[in-house]
Order: sequence, then C-alpha cells, then structure tokens
Amino acid sequence: MSAKLPDIKTKFPEWYQEVVRQAELADQSPVRGCIVIRPYGTAIWERLTSIVDKKMKSSGYQNALFPMLLPESFLKKEAAHVEGFAPELAVVTHAGNKQLSEPLVVRPTSETMIHSMFAKWIKSWRDLPLKINQWGSVMRWEMRPRAFLRTSEFYWHEGHSAHSSQECAQKEVDSMVKHFEDIARNYLAIPVVTGKKSKGETFPGADATYTYEGFMQDAKALQMGTSHMLSQSFSKAFEIQYQNKEGDLEMPWLTSTCAATTRLIGAVIMSHGDEKGLVLPPKIAPIQAVIIPIYKTDEQREAVLDAAYKIKNDLKDTVRVHIDADEQRKPGNKFFHWEMKGVPLRLEIGPRDLEKEHAMVADRLGLAKEPVLFADIARVLPEKLEAFQQALYDRAKERLDSQWVVKEKLEDIVKVSESSVIQTGFCGSDECEKLLKPKKLSIRCILSDNTLKLCFGCDQASIADVVVARSY
Amino acid sequence: MSAKLPDIKTKFPEWYQEVVRQAELADQSPVRGCIVIRPYGTAIWERLTSIVDKKMKSSGYQNALFPMLLPESFLKKEAAHVEGFAPELAVVTHAGNKQLSEPLVVRPTSETMIHSMFAKWIKSWRDLPLKINQWGSVMRWEMRPRAFLRTSEFYWHEGHSAHSSQECAQKEVDSMVKHFEDIARNYLAIPVVTGKKSKGETFPGADATYTYEGFMQDAKALQMGTSHMLSQSFSKAFEIQYQNKEGDLEMPWLTSTCAATTRLIGAVIMSHGDEKGLVLPPKIAPIQAVIIPIYKTDEQREAVLDAAYKIKNDLKDTVRVHIDADEQRKPGNKFFHWEMKGVPLRLEIGPRDLEKEHAMVADRLGLAKEPVLFADIARVLPEKLEAFQQALYDRAKERLDSQWVVKEKLEDIVKVSESSVIQTGFCGSDECEKLLKPKKLSIRCILSDNTLKLCFGCDQASIADVVVARSY
Repeated sequence: MSAKLPDIKTKFPEWYQEVVRQAELADQSPVRGCIVIRPYGTAIWERLTSIVDKKMKSSGYQNALFPMLLPESFLKKEAAHVEGFAPELAVVTHAGNKQLSEPLVVRPTSETMIHSMFAKWIKSWRDLPLKINQWGSVMRWEMRPRAFLRTSEFYWHEGHSAHSSQECAQKEVDSMVKHFEDIARNYLAIPVVTGKKSKGETFPGADATYTYEGFMQDAKALQMGTSHMLSQSFSKAFEIQYQNKEGDLEMPWLTSTCAATTRLIGAVIMSHGDEKGLVLPPKIAPIQAVIIPIYKTDEQREAVLDAAYKIKNDLKDTVRVHIDADEQRKPGNKFFHWEMKGVPLRLEIGPRDLEKEHAMVADRLGLAKEPVLFADIARVLPEKLEAFQQALYDRAKERLDSQWVVKEKLEDIVKVSESSVIQTGFCGSDECEKLLKPKKLSIRCILSDNTLKLCFGCDQASIADVVVARSY
Repeated sequence: MSAKLPDIKTKFPEWYQEVVRQAELADQSPVRGCIVIRPYGTAIWERLTSIVDKKMKSSGYQNALFPMLLPESFLKKEAAHVEGFAPELAVVTHAGNKQLSEPLVVRPTSETMIHSMFAKWIKSWRDLPLKINQWGSVMRWEMRPRAFLRTSEFYWHEGHSAHSSQECAQKEVDSMVKHFEDIARNYLAIPVVTGKKSKGETFPGADATYTYEGFMQDAKALQMGTSHMLSQSFSKAFEIQYQNKEGDLEMPWLTSTCAATTRLIGAVIMSHGDEKGLVLPPKIAPIQAVIIPIYKTDEQREAVLDAAYKIKNDLKDTVRVHIDADEQRKPGNKFFHWEMKGVPLRLEIGPRDLEKEHAMVADRLGLAKEPVLFADIARVLPEKLEAFQQALYDRAKERLDSQWVVKEKLEDIVKVSESSVIQTGFCGSDECEKLLKPKKLSIRCILSDNTLKLCFGCDQASIADVVVARSY
C-alpha cells in the first residue's frame, strides 16, 4: 500500500507526488490533466470552502450559480480577456446530436457570464454595491498537469462585485487582501506576501491584480489567490449602466476575487509536509486527533475502546476525533498511516494507560509525547491544537525568513534563485520584467517598501521593491 | 418590478414562470437551456444540500470530486447506458487550440467515471462496502427547457456504492428510499409515493430503479429522486473485481442514488405556491421570519428598529430572521414582496406595538394574525414554524387525496387524467406500458398494493397496482 517517501530535500517533486498518493488525497483520472479528489482531499477542501464562504458572506457576498458553458462570443467582448484565455479553452461544438451554431466554451472563469447578468440586474444606484459569489469548477487546458497545483479542471470560488465609484471598488479589493492574509496566517499557517502584481502577471482584462503568495520548502512561490480591480473595461464590454442619484447614466466599477482554489491543498502539502508525509494545520484538518487503541485480549479491546468512545463523545463539539478501531492492522502501522495523513494529534490508549486513567498524547510535529489524564483531555486537547497551529506557522515563518535574501542585480539573483526568495529593486518597465522569464523567474509581487535604489535589470531608479522567485 | 401573477388555476405554467421570476429564484441565461440560479434560489439549494449531505454522510458516504468531462468511450462500455444518454450529450471536440484525439462529453451522470475509479480502489472484501458521494452539476441537452424542472445543466448529488452481495446492495437502495420519504415529508412538506419504476422508466444500465414521486397542483407527477440497483452490469463493463474472504475473485454489486437536484425547488414552488407567489416550508426557507418596521418619524424608526434587532439577536440560534429596513419602500410593498418570496412568518412592529411590548405575527398561509409579546417571541416563533411546516404538509396531503382516483381501464384513466393521479392495475408488459405514451401519460411508480384484478391495458391479470399520471 505505502512505501518510504522519496527524500524531501533532494527529490521534492517526487516526494510531493507520493504524498498526494499515499495520503490518499487525489488520484490521476482517465481524463488528461484532470484529477480525482479522493475523500480525504475533498474533506480538506470542504473545510476550506466553509471558512472562505463565511468570509465572503460576512463581506456581503451572496452565492449564486451560473452556467458552466459560455458563448464563445462572450470571451471576445473584452480583448485582453480572450487573448489571455484562448490557448487554454475546452470547446463544446456539438450538443444533442447536432453541431452548435455557436461553439460554447467550458468556463475558464466567469467574468463574462456574470457581467452579462449584471447588465440585467443593475439599473439604479440602489442596486449597488452588488456582490455575487460562485463556488464551482473551471477548466483551463493544462499541458503539464500536477495534482492540485495545475490541473485542467480545478475547484474554486469567484466573487464578483460592482460599485458606484473607483474608490469603493478599490476598498473592496483591499478588504479582500485582508481576507487573504487572515486565511493564510490563521487557517493555513502559511506566512505570505501580499501586494500588487506587475503588469506581466496582471489578470487579462484587469487594471490591477492583487495577490497573496506563499513560498514552499523549495523556495518556489505559489500564487494562492488574487483580487482584480477590473475598473470599467467589462462594464463597457457588457454595457452595464445604471442611473445615479442625479438621474444620469453611469458605468459601475467592477472587481473579482478568488481567495481559495484546490491549489491551496498543494500549498499546505508543500509548506508543512515532512519526511513522514503530510502535516495538516488543525483548523483545516478533517481529523484533528486520532485515537489508537492498544490491546491484546478481547477484554482489553473492549475496555480500551470504551474509553476511546467516551473521549470522542466528550470532545464532540470541540475536536474532530477519529478512532482507528481497525482489527486488521497493528498499532505501528496505524501510527505510520495517520502520520502520512498529517493528523495533528495522536492518542494512544492501552491497558496500562487505562489503569493510570490517562492517554499518551503525541503530536505530528514531534514537539512532545506525554500522558494526559482522561479528566483533563477535554481542556488540554483544544489547547494543544492551538499551540500546534501556532508552532506550524512559526516553523514556516522561520523557514521563509531563512530563504529570504536581498539582491541588487539579476546576475546575483540568478545565483541564489534555486533556493531563495529574492527581494530586489524594479524600475517598472516591461523590458526588465521580461529579463526574468529565460531564467525561469518572475516578479511575484510588488512590495510597499522601496529600500533598493536601482532596478535589478537596468540602471534606472527602482520605483518599488519586488519579490522575485521561481514559481508553480 | 413585479406585477399580478397569472391565475394559478387556469394558467399554471405561466404562473410558475412568473413566480420563478418575481420571487427572484432564477433567470434565463444567455446559454440555451441553462438558467442562472439567483441568490434566493441558491440559498434554498444550499439548505437542501446541507440536509441531504448530512443524510448521506450518516449513511456512510464520503464526498469526493470527479472530472466533469468523460471520455466518450466510457459511456459506450455499458450498452444500455450509452443508448439512454447519447441524444442528450454535449461534446468537447477541441481543447488547448487542438482537436482532441478522443472527444470528451460533459458528464450527464458519473457512473462510468466513478466505476473506472472503483476498479482501482476495490481490491479486497475489506474495501467493501465503498460509498462515495459527489455534489456538482451535470449536463443533459434539453430541447424544451423549463427553470428548475428541465434545464440542460442542473445541480445534484450522486451517491455510488459497491457491496459484496446483492442483498447488501438491495438494503442500500431500500435505505435510500427511506431517506427520500423523510426528505419529502419532513423537510419539503410534500407527500410522495415511493416504489419501483416500470421497465420503460428504469435508468439506462440499471436492473431496477426506485423513485419518489410528488404530485403538483395540476396533478402532474414530478420525479424527485431515484435510487438504482445497478447489479453487476457496470462491474462487468469496468472490470471491477475483488478478492473475497476465501481468496476468490468476485464482482461487487453496485447502486447509485440521487436524492436531491435543483428540480426540488420546482417541486416546492408547484406543490405549495398560491396566488400570492411562493410558499416555503420553514425547514428549507432561507428566511423563516421577516420583520417589517412601521414608523413615521425618525425617532419612531430608531425605537422600532431597536426592538427588531433585539428580537433578531434573541432568535439567532433558532430562527432565520431578516429585518427589512429598506427606507425606499412602504410597509405594504414589503408585505407583498415577502409574500411573493414565500417567507413563512411576518412580524410587524410599529409604535403602538412597542407600547404594548408585542409584535403582530402573521403567517404566509393566512392561518392567524395575532400579537405575540416580545417576552414570548423566542418560545412562540419556533412553535409557529413547526405548526406551519405541519400545516403545509397537511394541506398538500389533502390535495393529493382529492386528486387521487382508482380507475380500471385506459379509457376511464384518460377521461380524468387532466386533473387526477390514477391508481390502476398493470400486467407488467411493455405493450400495455406503451399504450400510455400517446395519451401523454406514464407509469410513475409500481405500488406494493395489488388491489385491482385486471391490467388497465389488456385482459390479463394485474401483477401490481401502479400510479399513472402526466408528468414533468
């Protein structure tokens, strides 16, 4: 069933692929570029969606459902948009045994469909702001698929908003960036950098794109989510107009945001995993504590399981507990299995523990293994989970700090780019941004600092520090 | 914005369409046959999914996510299956700017994809039963679309199970039928008939299909969900084999089930709606009680809203309350608006009510309008919602009883079929079943009774009573 993992330091891509397989997160599907997300991976995704859904609703978004197919002509209405997505489209040409008069594309994103409905729904200033969110999957044909990170079909949400002024739209984008930081910091335990994207990395059709970027154990950046200031380009393309308070016709200012895709599961694997497999932040772990009963006789088994079920019941409102009562596997195999699956806490209960009225509690980070009295478990386990969540973040932050370097010139950047995240200066020109691609590097994010005097690529003054890295 | 509804008795289809529009449940989309489900419709669907998801999980199903595209060859592996679905397929022929070597179809249902994975996952008797559920949308090209009832894309869940014996698989199907009855009776407040489908109505590729059928105000039947005994046909087609306890290779017995699709929203509209619009069962209503503040002065407004927010806060764990604080609309318009949206309870609070420390509480069925003291609201409102849910079911049951007739012969059936649900005898032959289609009728369900001696279509003995009706 499972074998030793490839070395995480020297064979990170192979290690990743094996963790996805052995932790039973996903499987290859018979359709090229698409994966099957198995129950354990889906359970993580369901926890993520529930966290993000609450955030979007608290920001005034209402969920709605739009068709998965778009008329091909819709994409063409916004020139930059179609140029960006055309190479990745999957096209339906036949339906109901007939050739379609106009081909339909499987949505790569839903701006065009949703804006076509905004044009119907937005008539007056009273209809603004309008905030609509959709959960679903989208399709972007992928030549080099990799589970969770790049797949032709992936799952996400997309929030779309319309506002009466540029200022209101910008506030919306800013508040979404705050959500990004909160999700990464407090749920995924991943330290991130947030900020504006450079021109070369901006969403097709947007004026500006804001991102949150995580940095993995191999120092590669992963774009975890984005919020786009679409301004009025799509309002023009889809003829969205409303009557303002003075009775004049105006075009709304639009934004779109995605805080979470199934890619975040990849981020968690690559940010926290180790030589034993997955390590899950308690906030998104489907199982936060697993109980392994240890026994020899039937009588012992019954007594130990009784204690386990009592603990599970005591914790039913606070901790997600699983009892591994499988009679086919030995405790040692179970330890291995649940370590691979990244469960934060493990409780061992054997006959001697019963006598002492305690369980041995070990954590997945190897910080401690200690007895906890049954009477204290309901209090201690939530504390341990909180400490685990914090320790995981601290460890990731420490790693990022050690990966982070400041370099002034492209040649110095290239020297360290295999194992570093690089802060450097940037003049803002397309020409200098384009110097990075042949080196397999890109500007991940523009920082609010401006500490470096010159651009990494030319002799011009730097207008802002940027983060340069390899990326997924 | 909204106008008088078409007469529900004489113009039921037009009435339906207007309720969908005026209650803001759904809109036509720019893609033929597909609708946009608006926030209010989506909120109802989210409540339904949460109810059904809990039921599936309590039955041991785990959620997973499979690709939305299927290789065309997969459908062809099960002869009856492809024959049933071929006319309704949407086909992707191009992707990533290239023609695909094998076309992909947008899934009309996922048996083939999921069974191809079952073949990987099921190796030993220890892997059984395996129960996997998926939430998502499917595509069946629709020539005569109708919001919620028949749309090319619709949302649903599909549960797929594999068992070691026919008996276990049959037990699974039977337990799903129990879920159907519970969902209909206790959540949707719709009385249903459950039972086996006739051969002509059986799922393509299944040995037997079990259904739950609701009957609308126009006496037409609506198939609300189905569970299929697939037996071993798909196990053969996809070469699913496992080693039994004795070490021999066997094929598992498969089932698939869908307890809820977006069609159920249509069932609720047509089962409970009236001349004022939608009527929602409290269990699935996004808003269970709406508070309408009534005031003239700013001072009154503040006092009344204070009381409203206090009530909302008191009820936050028990009743889904919305305060309609819109300053643009008059109370009378608000009454009309929330009646159209089918909110079960309405609370009116004006300055005189404040003095008397009560709210006037009216229900959407017009059963009562009476003052309830603020001090009693937290206790009384949940009781009123429960009574409302029951009254709604009773009313629907009474209507079904009045629509139900027993007829012996086809000519008598045809005479009453415009306004009746007909119980009759059936010999079990394809020939007699086929007599119904030209009359726009079909066998909706085989009953467990056998009270009629002869078949409706011939002189042979009846083997079971059946329900015959027009249908959606």
